[in-house]
Amino acid sequence: MQAHLTHQHCWNSLPSPSVREAASMYSTAVAIFLVILVAALQSSEPPESPFPYHILLDPDGILELSWNISYVQEVIHFQLKVQGLRAGVLFGMSDRGELENADLIMLWTDGNRSYFADAWSDQKGQIHLDAQQDCQLLQVQRTSDGLSLLFKRPFVTCDPNDYLIEDDTVHLVYGILEEPFQSLEAINTSGLYTGLQRVQLLKSEVPTPTMPADVQTMEIRAPDVLIPDNETTYWCYVTELPQDFSQHHIIMYEAVVTEGNEALVHHMEVFQCAAEFKSFPLFNGPCDSKMKPDRLNYCRHVLAAWALGAKAFYYPEEAGVAFGGQGSSRYLRLEVHYHNPRNIQGRRDSSGIRLYYTATLRQFNAGIMELGLVYTPVMAIPPQETAFVLTGYCTDKCTMLALPTSGIHIFASQLHTHLTGRKVVTVLARDGQERMVVNRDNHYSPHFQEIRMLKKVVSVFPGDVLITSCTYNTEGKKLATVGGFGILEEMCVNYVHYYPQTELELCKSAVNDGYLQKYFHQVNSFNNEEVCTCPQASVPEQFTSVPWNSYNRDMLKALYRFAPISMHCNKTSAVRFQGEWNLQPLPEITSTLKDRTPNCPNGQAVSRTSPATVINWGQG
Amino acid sequence: MQAHLTHQHCWNSLPSPSVREAASMYSTAVAIFLVILVAALQSSEPPESPFPYHILLDPDGILELSWNISYVQEVIHFQLKVQGLRAGVLFGMSDRGELENADLIMLWTDGNRSYFADAWSDQKGQIHLDAQQDCQLLQVQRTSDGLSLLFKRPFVTCDPNDYLIEDDTVHLVYGILEEPFQSLEAINTSGLYTGLQRVQLLKSEVPTPTMPADVQTMEIRAPDVLIPDNETTYWCYVTELPQDFSQHHIIMYEAVVTEGNEALVHHMEVFQCAAEFKSFPLFNGPCDSKMKPDRLNYCRHVLAAWALGAKAFYYPEEAGVAFGGQGSSRYLRLEVHYHNPRNIQGRRDSSGIRLYYTATLRQFNAGIMELGLVYTPVMAIPPQETAFVLTGYCTDKCTMLALPTSGIHIFASQLHTHLTGRKVVTVLARDGQERMVVNRDNHYSPHFQEIRMLKKVVSVFPGDVLITSCTYNTEGKKLATVGGFGILEEMCVNYVHYYPQTELELCKSAVNDGYLQKYFHQVNSFNNEEVCTCPQASVPEQFTSVPWNSYNRDMLKALYRFAPISMHCNKTSAVRFQGEWNLQPLPEITSTLKDRTPNCPNGQAVSRTSPATVINWGQG
Repeated sequence: MQAHLTHQHCWNSLPSPSVREAASMYSTAVAIFLVILVAALQSSEPPESPFPYHILLDPDGILELSWNISYVQEVIHFQLKVQGLRAGVLFGMSDRGELENADLIMLWTDGNRSYFADAWSDQKGQIHLDAQQDCQLLQVQRTSDGLSLLFKRPFVTCDPNDYLIEDDTVHLVYGILEEPFQSLEAINTSGLYTGLQRVQLLKSEVPTPTMPADVQTMEIRAPDVLIPDNETTYWCYVTELPQDFSQHHIIMYEAVVTEGNEALVHHMEVFQCAAEFKSFPLFNGPCDSKMKPDRLNYCRHVLAAWALGAKAFYYPEEAGVAFGGQGSSRYLRLEVHYHNPRNIQGRRDSSGIRLYYTATLRQFNAGIMELGLVYTPVMAIPPQETAFVLTGYCTDKCTMLALPTSGIHIFASQLHTHLTGRKVVTVLARDGQERMVVNRDNHYSPHFQEIRMLKKVVSVFPGDVLITSCTYNTEGKKLATVGGFGILEEMCVNYVHYYPQTELELCKSAVNDGYLQKYFHQVNSFNNEEVCTCPQASVPEQFTSVPWNSYNRDMLKALYRFAPISMHCNKTSAVRFQGEWNLQPLPEITSTLKDRTPNCPNGQAVSRTSPATVINWGQG
Repeated sequence: MQAHLTHQHCWNSLPSPSVREAASMYSTAVAIFLVILVAALQSSEPPESPFPYHILLDPDGILELSWNISYVQEVIHFQLKVQGLRAGVLFGMSDRGELENADLIMLWTDGNRSYFADAWSDQKGQIHLDAQQDCQLLQVQRTSDGLSLLFKRPFVTCDPNDYLIEDDTVHLVYGILEEPFQSLEAINTSGLYTGLQRVQLLKSEVPTPTMPADVQTMEIRAPDVLIPDNETTYWCYVTELPQDFSQHHIIMYEAVVTEGNEALVHHMEVFQCAAEFKSFPLFNGPCDSKMKPDRLNYCRHVLAAWALGAKAFYYPEEAGVAFGGQGSSRYLRLEVHYHNPRNIQGRRDSSGIRLYYTATLRQFNAGIMELGLVYTPVMAIPPQETAFVLTGYCTDKCTMLALPTSGIHIFASQLHTHLTGRKVVTVLARDGQERMVVNRDNHYSPHFQEIRMLKKVVSVFPGDVLITSCTYNTEGKKLATVGGFGILEEMCVNYVHYYPQTELELCKSAVNDGYLQKYFHQVNSFNNEEVCTCPQASVPEQFTSVPWNSYNRDMLKALYRFAPISMHCNKTSAVRFQGEWNLQPLPEITSTLKDRTPNCPNGQAVSRTSPATVINWGQG
């Protein structure tokens, strides 16, 4: 597959009438396509407002996407810049980044004329014109090194072949056409150079608090790392705060990505080490290195996290993250995830995170609380499941004990699973009724974990229940996937960022082990003791020996829906709040939230334009 | 509650302008109501074609409904005749005949003026105007003894407050307003005289075959029965065919209902007795009488069945039901279900069924095959379930053995459950894929079991699978409901009428008993042997001792989805086809049919008229 698309033979062979001359072609209809001139489009729309969001779509930086959001009109304006365009480009969205069943816009040439259309790919990757054209082309411009497209798209189109743009992760897909196609239907995505990029398109636009006059910055950056030519590298770098660094509030942070490496730096996190150790070795190397000191496992308290596409993270005006001072470790660990699928060699990088902090402490300390499942093998997912759900609870009993009467206010959230996680949601329930979604990602990817500002702050009061559910896909597995710390084990966690900080660090659950043992006993009795799920075996061993027929799968689901739970209602990872936390009843939920489905029948505004657009532009 | 509404004081107080005079009122708008004159409506629509379908809605015959169907326009025209109208009437449809959450048309007066509107009742029975008026009033006429309304309604309106009219049972509801109401919103259905009537509105309009010249008729009628003044009576009457009655084909039958008793005769069936007994006692009395000879239990082979609202039943031109002649019993049993909720006394009845038959045998014998579940307690429904599904299978192994290569052709179907049945559906699967619905009733009522002509004949070939699922509501029960013959036990059956007749009379399944015992063993082990579900106990006793928590419910569902089945692939109720029928695998279904949802977004044609209509009519 050709990587660099610098030649332009197809493009050069296009007739290049001026924009004015193009008007004479208005009445020429090509096949089923209605002709709309770019000239007309260009004159009818004023240039768009600047685009606050940018991302490179491909590792070579051929495609650059910028966008802005109108929450009032529920419309996104996209600007797509293409370098060294050959014969066309496709761009779109799909459920999980596949090129099949994707919602696409297509720019292509038949060698003579060029077209723009709203399209979709079927389950075999073949491309079809959308019956309803919802992507409106506003501008096509030659640039010095390629082309720039400007188009807009409503969040909701009511076209069943279109992607529904929601608050969560969006898998953008792209492809490059290297030769002309006689028609749209002649294109199959399987023959193209394609890829995907994940992003949250509908970012929160909470107004940015102004920085105080005494704001200072500190960069936690990798020290001139030679990026390994492996697809995946987690780089670990330990550094320390100055001696006698007093307590400050982090009030904002942002990524500092070395120029040219934008497509390689996937995500970064800064962790604070545990205060219980006086010092930590200043390690600098791959996180999976055998040389990495074990003590670094105690550097897990998240101070800042950034992922591809994320902008600067601002704390609310009334809160900041305390760091420095008494009772807090001076040691910080930076983790950089390099994603280098093309195995580029010799690239050097000094990316990291820039912390903005102030000595003038804000009203509240911000805190991070862990919701979801305890890291224990008793919560497991059978193999070959397409959408198995595990749920962790933060019960009313725990919030009653640990939260102040005035409540806490969650303003941001970071969802976390390991490799089989596909969806994550946390819902708040009060008086047995689900009331609101704290954070939901129906297109969650373990490869894209950002801290997201909530569009609306969620207040949690004593007695409230927080229910975190994760959906897993284990189609690729032969054995059960148990809960745990390992990358091949699973987690279900929502790190919520809130204020005022409380002692509650962890509010999670797992099924009661005694009930799980009853399940294994049942599996055994149903299978005539052919399978050893003996209690002497470890829980992972027991899960490994379960024969995964539909009955044993359904029973496990039924067990997780029914059995009492063990709660972790903890101050720090070891210290529990006082009380009985074993054999707790599952929270009773009498009414659940319904999925918000867009209200399409009653004349949802959709922009319908002509079936396809013939485009022309002057040559650079 | 007043039963007979012969006075008309409110109605008499209405001004009674002639239709012509009414034109002067055109511009008067009352409150939010737009005025549309009946006069104008009358002139704009030609008189409708005759109404082939009729039904009395209430036991007193105050409300008579007639209708016709346009399958091309997907519209029903209704004619509602009201006797002795006081202050108004409501008519409509709801899920199961309740007056809450009903889709209604309302005719009411405020004492001065009268109105017609498309409306709906909320969950408390309060009535509201529909935002979208889909019932179009075409004519209002005074009659000698009341009023006649003509209106039309599309099958599908896309109004979420409207009922979706489908092929299956429709629960019609009605109510009589005895006094004026100042507004629609002031009406609550709970204060009215109301009721329900079940009917299949969208009847099959398969063209009626012409009767041959030699057609003869025979009436099987109750001999001048004094209808008991109980709400429910099943009357049994045994009669016999003439000596030496040779084989004939029944090619049609229809109900003969004694005039005046239309509202009391609920359903009737004619059964042929078993050929194995030479004679049967000529019993005539209530079917539950202690005097009824036990031998009548052998009169179960259905020859004809009629239920309220059903028209004549015609066999396809190429087939008829063989009766008479060698190897067939001369004895017939008529069963009449009298429904007398108002305990009317002294009414005499000679209703029955008129058989049309011919000595010129048709090409094929028609047969009846029983699909669904075996009558056995191993198939059970836990108590307090709102929609528990049991499924019976007719497997490929059985159809392979029993059906001719050219297949059989199902042209009619009668669904059957006992009192907790709420839905029944039979689906045909081929090569592991569900292909078509044989018959479905999502509003099935055990009180309304008709033989229905299929709109499309379904051909079944060797290797096909027929899957019959019944949905039960056991909210009123404290103990499990097991399968069986008793009225408090349950059944799940589809009697399909087909030709050419085969030896296969019964193709049904039930869960393997050994696997059910494993389930009981599991229930026991999970509950620490607190509950005795010992195998010495009978299956109903075992089900009675299950503690019905969510785990045991889910496990039972999982068992029915997983466990092997025992097949009844029978020639007559005792004789099985040769082969191994125990421990059969459940049919594997890889793709299921989707529920057809009406395609509303893309401009489904709905008739929108004014919010409400002020009506006037001349006084009789």
